[in-house]
Amino acid sequence: MGKVFEVKSKDEFSHARTGVLETAHGEIETPVFMPVGTRGSVKGLTPEQITETDSQIILANTYHMMLRPGADIVEELGGLHKLMAWDKPILTDSGGYQVFSLSTLNKITDSGVEFASHIDGKKYILGPESSIEIQNKLGADIIMAFDECTPFPCPEERLKTAVNRSIRWAEQSLKSHKRDDQLLFGIVQGGIDLALRSGCAEGLVSMGFPGYAIGGLSVGEGHKNMIETVNHTATLLPEDKPRYLMGVGMPPDIIAAVKAGVDMFDCVLPTRNGRNAFAFTQSGAVRLRNSIHTKDSSPIENNCDCYACRNFSRAAIRHFFNVGEMLGPTLVSIHNIRFFQRLIASIKERIKDGSFSSWADKQVEKYQKCGLCRDF
Amino acid sequence: MGKVFEVKSKDEFSHARTGVLETAHGEIETPVFMPVGTRGSVKGLTPEQITETDSQIILANTYHMMLRPGADIVEELGGLHKLMAWDKPILTDSGGYQVFSLSTLNKITDSGVEFASHIDGKKYILGPESSIEIQNKLGADIIMAFDECTPFPCPEERLKTAVNRSIRWAEQSLKSHKRDDQLLFGIVQGGIDLALRSGCAEGLVSMGFPGYAIGGLSVGEGHKNMIETVNHTATLLPEDKPRYLMGVGMPPDIIAAVKAGVDMFDCVLPTRNGRNAFAFTQSGAVRLRNSIHTKDSSPIENNCDCYACRNFSRAAIRHFFNVGEMLGPTLVSIHNIRFFQRLIASIKERIKDGSFSSWADKQVEKYQKCGLCRDF
Ligand SMILES: [Zn+2]
Ligand SMILES: [Zn+2]
Repeated sequence: MGKVFEVKSKDEFSHARTGVLETAHGEIETPVFMPVGTRGSVKGLTPEQITETDSQIILANTYHMMLRPGADIVEELGGLHKLMAWDKPILTDSGGYQVFSLSTLNKITDSGVEFASHIDGKKYILGPESSIEIQNKLGADIIMAFDECTPFPCPEERLKTAVNRSIRWAEQSLKSHKRDDQLLFGIVQGGIDLALRSGCAEGLVSMGFPGYAIGGLSVGEGHKNMIETVNHTATLLPEDKPRYLMGVGMPPDIIAAVKAGVDMFDCVLPTRNGRNAFAFTQSGAVRLRNSIHTKDSSPIENNCDCYACRNFSRAAIRHFFNVGEMLGPTLVSIHNIRFFQRLIASIKERIKDGSFSSWADKQVEKYQKCGLCRDF
Repeated sequence: MGKVFEVKSKDEFSHARTGVLETAHGEIETPVFMPVGTRGSVKGLTPEQITETDSQIILANTYHMMLRPGADIVEELGGLHKLMAWDKPILTDSGGYQVFSLSTLNKITDSGVEFASHIDGKKYILGPESSIEIQNKLGADIIMAFDECTPFPCPEERLKTAVNRSIRWAEQSLKSHKRDDQLLFGIVQGGIDLALRSGCAEGLVSMGFPGYAIGGLSVGEGHKNMIETVNHTATLLPEDKPRYLMGVGMPPDIIAAVKAGVDMFDCVLPTRNGRNAFAFTQSGAVRLRNSIHTKDSSPIENNCDCYACRNFSRAAIRHFFNVGEMLGPTLVSIHNIRFFQRLIASIKERIKDGSFSSWADKQVEKYQKCGLCRDF
């Protein structure tokens, strides 16, 4: 494979940039926001509906797919793209995050993690070799090195041990990787400890990954700590490689991270909040279960071009939630994903026309005021 | 309004016919199958997805809409079409069926039924005047007279009283009806008692409704009793008016009823069975939760042109059900509705080209053999 990532334009007043990332299932224009299809489906949406939100790439969770239906079955069925009926790019995470947050851990050793499934208690071992083997079978376009995820806050010694282990696991992930058509990204860990972030970034960059993620954030550290860490870490990563901030986030987080030079994002909030009748709008959160919307004939957001806003009133959507119709969660999830994709489109446009930096500061301030900051 | 229904072609060997029914929201080609949007939503589908199944008209339940969000709110929001984002024809039932089957009845008098809501026990009264007033507010294109629905089996005396009351209520419904843009249909009751059916049909026909429904079937009487009753009743109804068999049904029921001269059908089975992973196919039922589909890369039905079959394997759909993703019910519901619409399309084609009658008998036999009869 030739050059997989190319920076197309740079912001004069910040580290923000636009770029193009080449994958086996087509080009991705960055910055990019990836909706999450945890178990092979972006909850409540068909691939057709996801496409209509202008999403270019979706994420699936290795942990969930390895438990059900299992990597061998996915492979036998022709891979994740076929299973999910999505022929554009897919990214799988390494499973590390879910192993450390969802399952019952039995043992962490240098070769991996022994855990019990959160579904039936069945025992599994996941480490750099097996995570990559599974991700090779799932067949996503971008796959992630296996890492140790720490909680926030985390004692210094534990954080240090985890970072060192993640560096070793990154190297083992790289060695285990067998498919040329998949891009394997390394993941920088280190919590909000900037020195640990530096060491981890340095270790990974020397291994020459085609892209780098910043992991271990959006776990309770707050917007300020997150952005401080992202500002520090992004500049340690090669200019000519894509940078991916995992699991982030709320609109002001995304805008501030783009300013720091981040290119890729994923987050469950658009769909999770959508299922809870919580809609993102430029003027703040709209809670559609609220009785003030009982007779509200306006759309979720004026001037929104999404399928929900073009067709349904807030009153109708409130009714669907009120009587438990699936259409409610579907409509608000569609709106929320479209809201994020429109935010990304504005960001790209601003970077290209040179107005990004000042706009970004005002946007972050606006979203913090209206409650769409990550600590809402 | 001029001529609302026109018979376009007649089958030489049976009472089957094709026709066009004119409504305020466009023409309906009959025979027609109406998916059910109980509470203002065809469960699991957006209006866009319903349109893709080639559905021309959908049904909403007056009982459910009167309880939540309430007829006044629907009216204030611009009517059902606006609430549901469906600008093609809609039919509402009278609420009678649900009042008699879902709620706790307090009292039946000649002026209506006093009942307690199945949701919160709140007391309501529904009768011919109020049902029509509510249906006028909801604003569907076709509305139904308020009738008394009896269980199966039903003691003769009770059935007789109910039929006589339904005839009086039909007349009161007609008098209460205030909107020229809505077609009010009368409903013939009488269980499987052919003499009662005759009397009821005669009474209603003398009132001059623009269309007639056959109610009180598909309540446990079985295919043979149902079709015997339909054969008897359909011929009592005017040739130049549409005939609607309410709540029916399974493919062989529909085919046999078309043969008897019925033009319209509605049924919850495509979506209810869809949510339970039960798919209709020409070769019988496919139960997608079954483990034999774990690695089954074929679509639900070969040569089906629906969104589900064009994009997803049985294995993928089984996986979505297995992990509880909404996409599973959505996909099988789409397939099932499309299956019913394709059945209707075949019926229409066969009536037009003169091959309907012999084909119909073979189809009924086939579906009974493969388990898609109504007594499965
Ligand atoms: Zn919208
Ligand atoms: Zn299909």
